Amino acid sequence: MSSTSHLFSSRAEHRAWLAANAALPRGFRVGTTRFDFMPFEVPKPAKMTVTLIALDQPTADFAAMFTKNAFPGAPVIVGRNRLAQPRLGAIIVNNKISNVCAPGGVDTSERLCAATAQALGLAATEVLPSSTGVIGWRLPADQMIAALPQAVATLKPGSILPAAEGIVTTDLYPKIRRADLAGGSIVGIAKGAGMIEPNMATMLVYVLTDLAVPRDTLRTILARAVDRSFNRMSIDSDTSTSDTVVLLSSGAVPCPDLAAFEAALTTVCCDLAEDVARNGEGVRHVIRVTVKGAPTENTARAIGKSVVNAPLFKCAVAGNDPNVGRLVQAVGKYVGACEPGIPLGRTCMSMGGIPIVANGEFALDPTKEAALIAHMKAAELYASAEPKDGVYSPPVDFPPHERCVEVEIDLGAGAASATVIGADLTHEYVSENADYRS
Amino acid sequence: MSSTSHLFSSRAEHRAWLAANAALPRGFRVGTTRFDFMPFEVPKPAKMTVTLIALDQPTADFAAMFTKNAFPGAPVIVGRNRLAQPRLGAIIVNNKISNVCAPGGVDTSERLCAATAQALGLAATEVLPSSTGVIGWRLPADQMIAALPQAVATLKPGSILPAAEGIVTTDLYPKIRRADLAGGSIVGIAKGAGMIEPNMATMLVYVLTDLAVPRDTLRTILARAVDRSFNRMSIDSDTSTSDTVVLLSSGAVPCPDLAAFEAALTTVCCDLAEDVARNGEGVRHVIRVTVKGAPTENTARAIGKSVVNAPLFKCAVAGNDPNVGRLVQAVGKYVGACEPGIPLGRTCMSMGGIPIVANGEFALDPTKEAALIAHMKAAELYASAEPKDGVYSPPVDFPPHERCVEVEIDLGAGAASATVIGADLTHEYVSENADYRS
Repeated sequence: MSSTSHLFSSRAEHRAWLAANAALPRGFRVGTTRFDFMPFEVPKPAKMTVTLIALDQPTADFAAMFTKNAFPGAPVIVGRNRLAQPRLGAIIVNNKISNVCAPGGVDTSERLCAATAQALGLAATEVLPSSTGVIGWRLPADQMIAALPQAVATLKPGSILPAAEGIVTTDLYPKIRRADLAGGSIVGIAKGAGMIEPNMATMLVYVLTDLAVPRDTLRTILARAVDRSFNRMSIDSDTSTSDTVVLLSSGAVPCPDLAAFEAALTTVCCDLAEDVARNGEGVRHVIRVTVKGAPTENTARAIGKSVVNAPLFKCAVAGNDPNVGRLVQAVGKYVGACEPGIPLGRTCMSMGGIPIVANGEFALDPTKEAALIAHMKAAELYASAEPKDGVYSPPVDFPPHERCVEVEIDLGAGAASATVIGADLTHEYVSENADYRS
Repeated sequence: MSSTSHLFSSRAEHRAWLAANAALPRGFRVGTTRFDFMPFEVPKPAKMTVTLIALDQPTADFAAMFTKNAFPGAPVIVGRNRLAQPRLGAIIVNNKISNVCAPGGVDTSERLCAATAQALGLAATEVLPSSTGVIGWRLPADQMIAALPQAVATLKPGSILPAAEGIVTTDLYPKIRRADLAGGSIVGIAKGAGMIEPNMATMLVYVLTDLAVPRDTLRTILARAVDRSFNRMSIDSDTSTSDTVVLLSSGAVPCPDLAAFEAALTTVCCDLAEDVARNGEGVRHVIRVTVKGAPTENTARAIGKSVVNAPLFKCAVAGNDPNVGRLVQAVGKYVGACEPGIPLGRTCMSMGGIPIVANGEFALDPTKEAALIAHMKAAELYASAEPKDGVYSPPVDFPPHERCVEVEIDLGAGAASATVIGADLTHEYVSENADYRS
């Protein structure tokens, strides 16, 4: 999936790499502001960052995909309406509160768009809103509007890094991926971390390009790229109410080759999806499952999802424990419940290239056991550190490598295949989500 | 769901309650034996218990349901074949190794049945095998057969407790439920703990009755009872490859009222299902979700399952954290992905009787927040104890109460309802499944 395989020995080195890849495409500026506020529901001091992504000129060429969760956030409701508008000129994103099922949520989102539009000389319908954070709480709209001039004042071209840092919540590090082609570029950022099994869209992702691609083509291409990237990834099987992917083209550079554009966009999206998994809440191992020999691509993807969402297999990987019976369980669970007609007698499986199942039967021995443990240890992002006051926290805040636990499943029952990205289930995930209010 | 609400202050008190409810129906005997052995795959010393459940006379009146997992264990394959046999006389159960996808697994299971049959004066096809434990490993058949005479020597009527204790793996305590009616009884035992989201069957459950119910009726009634009990429960969304429910009737007592029999059997199954959840790996809170106002009972059940299987909601409950946004997410995830036509604008939700969502919008305040925390704390089975060498273990080995975190969801979109039982996601679950090989 990933086109790259980096190693970083420190946060400074990772940050330097991000900065080297952060150049904004032509025609865009980003700005941010951060302020303290008091939530209405739980009166404990909190901080919010507001991020602006602005085009020098509003564009007709924009695309967006949203969560399929049936309780969408107010910004998702507003964003879906924006798809019918002739032009988009800016995006306003806040973290900390997601504005989902909150009283008056849609009005609040529209008010923020109108204030942003006024500050930038746009129509309110030319602004797309995004919010991420606690579900159910109300946005502090007055304070957000009061903070807008500061965000506008920081708008500048050059680097997307301030936006990549502004949109995060529990993420450990900002995520930026780029592709340069035909004298232009495609640059994407992502907010991820938890409540992540995208469905037709994902988390918050903003992809900017100066390559000129007309709106309808842009939307078709984005749908395909999302299907091959964010929709093949799961941190915890939970689908956020706020998932949003936006793709904006400033049109500053002619696009001579749509196929090359689509390939580059797909790579950017796949790399970001893997970044989101690698930076998932408490993730210590990224798991890549390739399912081959399936009757259809949808079946291959569903089996891959069943594996990366099986809590017992995820726990085994967390513990570097080659409990491969749990892998077989996860495949059989999906097939038995959803497609019982698929024969599994020719199924072969391997992990880290080590064969473990042949024609539906295990072939295990102590030597393989040791090799499987070594493969999982090599893919560990960090070793669990002793908990402080009972809370486990990741001891590093940068991705030290881009290796995965590699699982290959060949059903021997067709010609279709798919690759799915997931993660382990760790004490750090439980600490992040049970030991204190995120 | 549960017909009872017990409090126990010690393991001794719980054990006395179990003993008081353990009387076997007429016509049955149970026996066990325990021995040391060395697994082929990972040569580390291990212990296995073999449990026998025997009828005084083989019966034609037996029913069984099995996992839908498409990689069923060898005993499940053999057990399915037994359904066509005229009579059943005994069940042989072992723990530690589940005999799933192991080379020669079916032959090994048949060999064990033949040896058991010979020792009991039965035909091999009159013995049903069950195995639970590590997937993929081979059974130590020679040692099991050598241990059989000892198990046969311990066979006696009176108490089912030895069998309830013999079949467990990582369970904290044995599980027995009974109903007495019409001069006879229905007595069930269960092995549970992890890899549990039954599908058409469940874990290992053996229900014995002396009430005479003919085979076909028994099978129809068992299917309905399983559908209303074990198939509405999930510990971790994983479906074991060995799930088995068996119901045997010795026919020693006439059954004057089939409806009363079905009601009593359903209660025994529901109670056992709740016991299995309460004794699930690392479970600190049992969660009971009632979904009302649904278009169909299947939809109500699926939404309940989506809630009890949502990792983020499970973590929030583990932390006594009223993060009710995660509850809304779980409902919207299912509806958006599977039944997007269901309108959610009239949805109301409560937790512990405290209203939190009305007509699709949150109604939260600091007072409710405190009441929600109090409700969750009251339903906690035990407080997390400081980990030893990084491993969290439950500090109690008996169920101190039978309270649940009570969630009610009224979709306002129909007349159907269903109740689903689940559990939280804790450090103890991760320790059990990641910190050492189970």
